[in-house]
Amino acid sequence: MNRQQLIHQIKTKKTFLCVGLDTDINKIPKHLLSLENPVLAFNKQIIDATKHLCIAYKINTAFYECLGIKGWQTMIDTLNYIPENIFTIADAKRGDIGNTATMYAQAFFDIQASGMSFDAVTVAPYMGADSVKPFLAFADKWTILLALTSNESGKDFQFIKNDDGFLYQQVIKKANQWANPNQLMYVVGATRGQAFEDIRKIAPHNFLLVPGVGQQGGSLADVCKYGLNADCGLIVNSSRGIIYAGADENFANAAHTEALKIQQEMEVELAKIFEV
Amino acid sequence: MNRQQLIHQIKTKKTFLCVGLDTDINKIPKHLLSLENPVLAFNKQIIDATKHLCIAYKINTAFYECLGIKGWQTMIDTLNYIPENIFTIADAKRGDIGNTATMYAQAFFDIQASGMSFDAVTVAPYMGADSVKPFLAFADKWTILLALTSNESGKDFQFIKNDDGFLYQQVIKKANQWANPNQLMYVVGATRGQAFEDIRKIAPHNFLLVPGVGQQGGSLADVCKYGLNADCGLIVNSSRGIIYAGADENFANAAHTEALKIQQEMEVELAKIFEV
Repeated sequence: MNRQQLIHQIKTKKTFLCVGLDTDINKIPKHLLSLENPVLAFNKQIIDATKHLCIAYKINTAFYECLGIKGWQTMIDTLNYIPENIFTIADAKRGDIGNTATMYAQAFFDIQASGMSFDAVTVAPYMGADSVKPFLAFADKWTILLALTSNESGKDFQFIKNDDGFLYQQVIKKANQWANPNQLMYVVGATRGQAFEDIRKIAPHNFLLVPGVGQQGGSLADVCKYGLNADCGLIVNSSRGIIYAGADENFANAAHTEALKIQQEMEVELAKIFEV
Repeated sequence: MNRQQLIHQIKTKKTFLCVGLDTDINKIPKHLLSLENPVLAFNKQIIDATKHLCIAYKINTAFYECLGIKGWQTMIDTLNYIPENIFTIADAKRGDIGNTATMYAQAFFDIQASGMSFDAVTVAPYMGADSVKPFLAFADKWTILLALTSNESGKDFQFIKNDDGFLYQQVIKKANQWANPNQLMYVVGATRGQAFEDIRKIAPHNFLLVPGVGQQGGSLADVCKYGLNADCGLIVNSSRGIIYAGADENFANAAHTEALKIQQEMEVELAKIFEV
């Protein structure tokens, strides 16, 4: 999905919500556990209940890898179940050099090689250009680079500062030289409200993937106040707050209710930037 | 495998070589391609030819992930084929927070969950303590944290400097507060010869996993001169230089010859620190 198609989806559906499929077999409703593949059954019901309210799904690869072969198959089956016109993100946070990075890109982008073709993958910047450019070589795909993460200890290194600014600012400035906003997004945590204003100065046009709304304490209003640009420019993720909203047979309805609540807030925000 | 067992293996086998199983189906000898699983057949012959000359195998997960389910199964089968007394490293460079990091740790450490139990996994530091400590919670396992990588663009961010030193130095100093050298190693590229001296000042006892000897241009002599400590303290990896030493039916012999050459150099170096 390219930038124009993504913006079109946001305008049409009046939402920039991403639902995070961080599906933990220990947290899903107990009645599903007797099924052949409880995680897949859960994901399908969540997708059915939320697909009209979101423009993206983010699959956290760790939750599937930890189940070995069966988990990897569940990831493929989940991806295949997501409707064609919804943006798909492999939240894999990969980071390795040259040829190895190309292999990771194939794992998530090349359906012939791996059985999967996501629209985007999250990538870590520590190893520099070598570890990011191979993902950018897939011209019709997106790279979402970690910049300023939502977790408390994100500040351990991301806030290291010298005359060129904070590390996370230097990551954004350098990566902007590698690709344009049609291919490159940044991860910026919702808990970093005040930093959005600074980030918009150095990345005015890039979409930002924003985790940390809800359970992690970030405010959607703050994120929008400082982060929205003329094309929306935000994909705001909620995982636990939506998928674990209910713990019984009605979990999908509960997820729908939570997603609807967020979509309605987003519709109000979008009305400020788009003619409706 | 704990630290004492690792040191015992190094002394007994007179080597600190790690063979990197970065097995690319496009680079293995053509005669293997008619087999049911060419990558697995290649890995088994490489292991048979080198297991007396190395103390560790490093599986680069990207090369298996890019083949989807079949690749993941090949990774499990390769790991199972490695003899019990050889240290195994999942070179996965994972980095995510809290619960997600625990899932990644399970993927590589918990055989009940995922079918795999490596001795160690490589981890990226960008997201800070949250993304490293969950791996360290597996007390009988090792975390190998990226510090100073061998690739050219490693300097994009790792050499960012302020009054507290370079980023890679700050990573090491901070991580030393999270775990002791019985659980924590660092990745330091062989191409960073002069930096080893500085790193030994802040990490005198940690083992260092050293890629970049051979194809990437690093010198084993330099690495040893500045990097060896009283327990050896080095695991030096070679991947392409060994596994692709030959391109025909004799590839395993060629790999043996290359590994033997490195082992013999290492034996000379070890004689300088251990009574033999």
